[in-house]
Amino acid sequence: MAADTWDFSDLRAIYLNCTLKPAPLVSNTAGLMANSVAIMRAHGVTADEVRAVDHGLAPGVQIDMTQHGWTSDGWPPIYQQVMAADIVVIGTPIWLGDKSSVCTRVIERLYAGSSELNPAGQYSYYGKVGGVIVTGNEDGIKHVAMNVLYSLQHLGCTIPPQADAGWIGEAGPGPSYLDEGSGGPDNDFTRRNTTFMTWNLMHLARLIKEAGGIPAYGNQRTEWDAGTRFDHPNPEYR
Amino acid sequence: MAADTWDFSDLRAIYLNCTLKPAPLVSNTAGLMANSVAIMRAHGVTADEVRAVDHGLAPGVQIDMTQHGWTSDGWPPIYQQVMAADIVVIGTPIWLGDKSSVCTRVIERLYAGSSELNPAGQYSYYGKVGGVIVTGNEDGIKHVAMNVLYSLQHLGCTIPPQADAGWIGEAGPGPSYLDEGSGGPDNDFTRRNTTFMTWNLMHLARLIKEAGGIPAYGNQRTEWDAGTRFDHPNPEYR
Amino acid sequence: MAADTWDFSDLRAIYLNCTLKPAPLVSNTAGLMANSVAIMRAHGVTADEVRAVDHGLAPGVQIDMTQHGWTSDGWPPIYQQVMAADIVVIGTPIWLGDKSSVCTRVIERLYAGSSELNPAGQYSYYGKVGGVIVTGNEDGIKHVAMNVLYSLQHLGCTIPPQADAGWIGEAGPGPSYLDEGSGGPDNDFTRRNTTFMTWNLMHLARLIKEAGGIPAYGNQRTEWDAGTRFDHPNPEYR
Amino acid sequence: MAADTWDFSDLRAIYLNCTLKPAPLVSNTAGLMANSVAIMRAHGVTADEVRAVDHGLAPGVQIDMTQHGWTSDGWPPIYQQVMAADIVVIGTPIWLGDKSSVCTRVIERLYAGSSELNPAGQYSYYGKVGGVIVTGNEDGIKHVAMNVLYSLQHLGCTIPPQADAGWIGEAGPGPSYLDEGSGGPDNDFTRRNTTFMTWNLMHLARLIKEAGGIPAYGNQRTEWDAGTRFDHPNPEYR
Repeated sequence: MAADTWDFSDLRAIYLNCTLKPAPLVSNTAGLMANSVAIMRAHGVTADEVRAVDHGLAPGVQIDMTQHGWTSDGWPPIYQQVMAADIVVIGTPIWLGDKSSVCTRVIERLYAGSSELNPAGQYSYYGKVGGVIVTGNEDGIKHVAMNVLYSLQHLGCTIPPQADAGWIGEAGPGPSYLDEGSGGPDNDFTRRNTTFMTWNLMHLARLIKEAGGIPAYGNQRTEWDAGTRFDHPNPEYR
Repeated sequence: MAADTWDFSDLRAIYLNCTLKPAPLVSNTAGLMANSVAIMRAHGVTADEVRAVDHGLAPGVQIDMTQHGWTSDGWPPIYQQVMAADIVVIGTPIWLGDKSSVCTRVIERLYAGSSELNPAGQYSYYGKVGGVIVTGNEDGIKHVAMNVLYSLQHLGCTIPPQADAGWIGEAGPGPSYLDEGSGGPDNDFTRRNTTFMTWNLMHLARLIKEAGGIPAYGNQRTEWDAGTRFDHPNPEYR
Repeated sequence: MAADTWDFSDLRAIYLNCTLKPAPLVSNTAGLMANSVAIMRAHGVTADEVRAVDHGLAPGVQIDMTQHGWTSDGWPPIYQQVMAADIVVIGTPIWLGDKSSVCTRVIERLYAGSSELNPAGQYSYYGKVGGVIVTGNEDGIKHVAMNVLYSLQHLGCTIPPQADAGWIGEAGPGPSYLDEGSGGPDNDFTRRNTTFMTWNLMHLARLIKEAGGIPAYGNQRTEWDAGTRFDHPNPEYR
Repeated sequence: MAADTWDFSDLRAIYLNCTLKPAPLVSNTAGLMANSVAIMRAHGVTADEVRAVDHGLAPGVQIDMTQHGWTSDGWPPIYQQVMAADIVVIGTPIWLGDKSSVCTRVIERLYAGSSELNPAGQYSYYGKVGGVIVTGNEDGIKHVAMNVLYSLQHLGCTIPPQADAGWIGEAGPGPSYLDEGSGGPDNDFTRRNTTFMTWNLMHLARLIKEAGGIPAYGNQRTEWDAGTRFDHPNPEYR
């Protein structure tokens, strides 16, 4: 098969960069994400990059925290971008082996929308696909990835095969991804994972969009609340 | 839409129960998994249940450890069942907040097959979908689920929306899922998650099988090793 | 032995509450922490309670972010309180199975001081003891506790036996700790863990203070950097 | 201060190596643990090394599984060694970002003794100190360390400052610690962490032994069960 077997030009992606550094400081996470963004754009996907720390996200688990006591909140417009996207990629640096506080904040704010429903009665993140990109200088890609991907699927995203990519150096302090001599941009393993992740995100997004979303049966909150049990055995009869 | 909109009768599922208790001891994890199995069977899916602890899985990360010094190894036939399945569900109890040692063993043995390729040059778990079921008496569903689902997607499975379900009681020791008065089988949250997980596993497995597997472009190890880069930017030109 | 066998009156503790809710909103985490604070105060420990979200902690991994581009930063005075304390307790709610973004931020800011040294050449958190208190309504105490306690010991704190306590309800949404009918304040397991944690924090802080801190040999960064190897085998001679 | 300020010659340590490889296969984890063992022995500590996979540990959460249906169980004699030790170090390789199945098994079996009490009515692991050593070829030291150290403190061990050490290479497959050219044995960060961990384990074990164990007040299960509340506030009076 060739790349032009599929048309991805109606897909939108959002890359949420959770670096602690405000623009215009250099973000290593942005450096690695750029490779994934480039592949998507080369195939017609509209890809937005958002540096969350620049937007002043208020703490809390409501969609708009200005209605809950905060004087400002940068999340609502980002939330609109997320809702418009078919593909959601979260990028984060590693600090003390874990995702950044900005990443934790982004996940809390995504969670704020977790009880919204789509017209079919499914959770409103259904139909999106999710991935994660992680950079650090020594350890923690998988720890961070398992947490972020878990959150995305819990909210309703589908996780394609091998939907994480990252770069770290050898144990101990050392250069960051974009630093001269880090070896990061040349790391074949990181390049391969970034590529496979990106294509699998596009393929699954395409597949699900083609199907009109995740088929709506057995997974609608509205139907469950109305009493439908979709053949789950009844405890009374055991 | 109605349940009979889809035909799931050509799908196979394997439920790998990672309880520490050999048959015929009561497994709470089996008790919860039974609800998911029942939904699948009601819709024509062929579902195998395997209690891993009964099969003497040798330690190691090769597909058949009898070729690496162990006198016996129960994994190879289970591996065949996994390879025949479209849907892989791992069930595990929680001990000290983590998955069981039998579950860690099962994941190591699944990992043993991670370098195998399918005819398209993709990793051989591509095309399967994965989920997880967790039982305990007090804490840890999400911790266990994020680890197990991460492993499954890392190996090449697709993770449908909300592909985890579980039951635990209030903080502190207490009755297990199947114990009289636990409240487990009646827990509406657990029942809903089990139902949604099961249907989403069937829907995604259907979708991917219909598509002839995960589309083979941008994600074939053979092609990558042969030098194809699928539009990943070249570091030399930066 | 009786409680007055020890004199704890020269000890200081800081309780860092990482709720997402600014004062005067009710914090369930504060509700559980109050029990630990009460025990300490009953035995003469000076215990400060800080609600981090009220202090505007800037993102970043420097001790004072106003020197790195941020116009304000509430961390420096809290850092002084931490440095003055013998006992550091982090309290956090659970969101999506993980610690709060405010908690991640607090850990990043503690990490900002991780290269500071005390007069003996040890990392400056040496000599302190650490614990964690977690509240949620359904799942995740241990996942959060392992992460927070790991960070504290990595920075140089000693972790006494059973230094975590928490409360969650049964799987699924439900009342929070302080809500009417939650059962939280009456939970014997939570009460016991809170008590044992609190006493073990006081005992270890007492023991270490009595010893003049962690004995300074084999663990001084200054000595290591000067070439002392404290009998670590030399790789050249293997 | 000089090394001979302290006498460690009455201390015992147990190093539980959780490699998947039976003797006489080369264990990279053993290779790294050897450095810590060497420091301890140079200072008079009696240090046992146990390769758990060679001992056939039965699955289950009882101290002796031969009394619960298994025909053999290698754990009981190891448990005696653990109980005789002042210092418990768990070493494990990383597979798919997590600790080995042998390590999970060892922790389950340690957990089997978690309800045993010492003569003071404290949990019987009180008084011991714990640490962890991790080897892999690419990622996961901190993820594994946080899990293992959490389990050890939960059981009653004290965790000294910086009680974890490990080695991994750059992201992606690569040489293991003992492989020619890995850089592992020469890694200054790993050597320093191993040294500091080892000395802190000895120092804390010394301190606690000197004090006659963790002071017995506020932390005795027997007293709690008899109704003593050690100044925990009473919920009725709030």
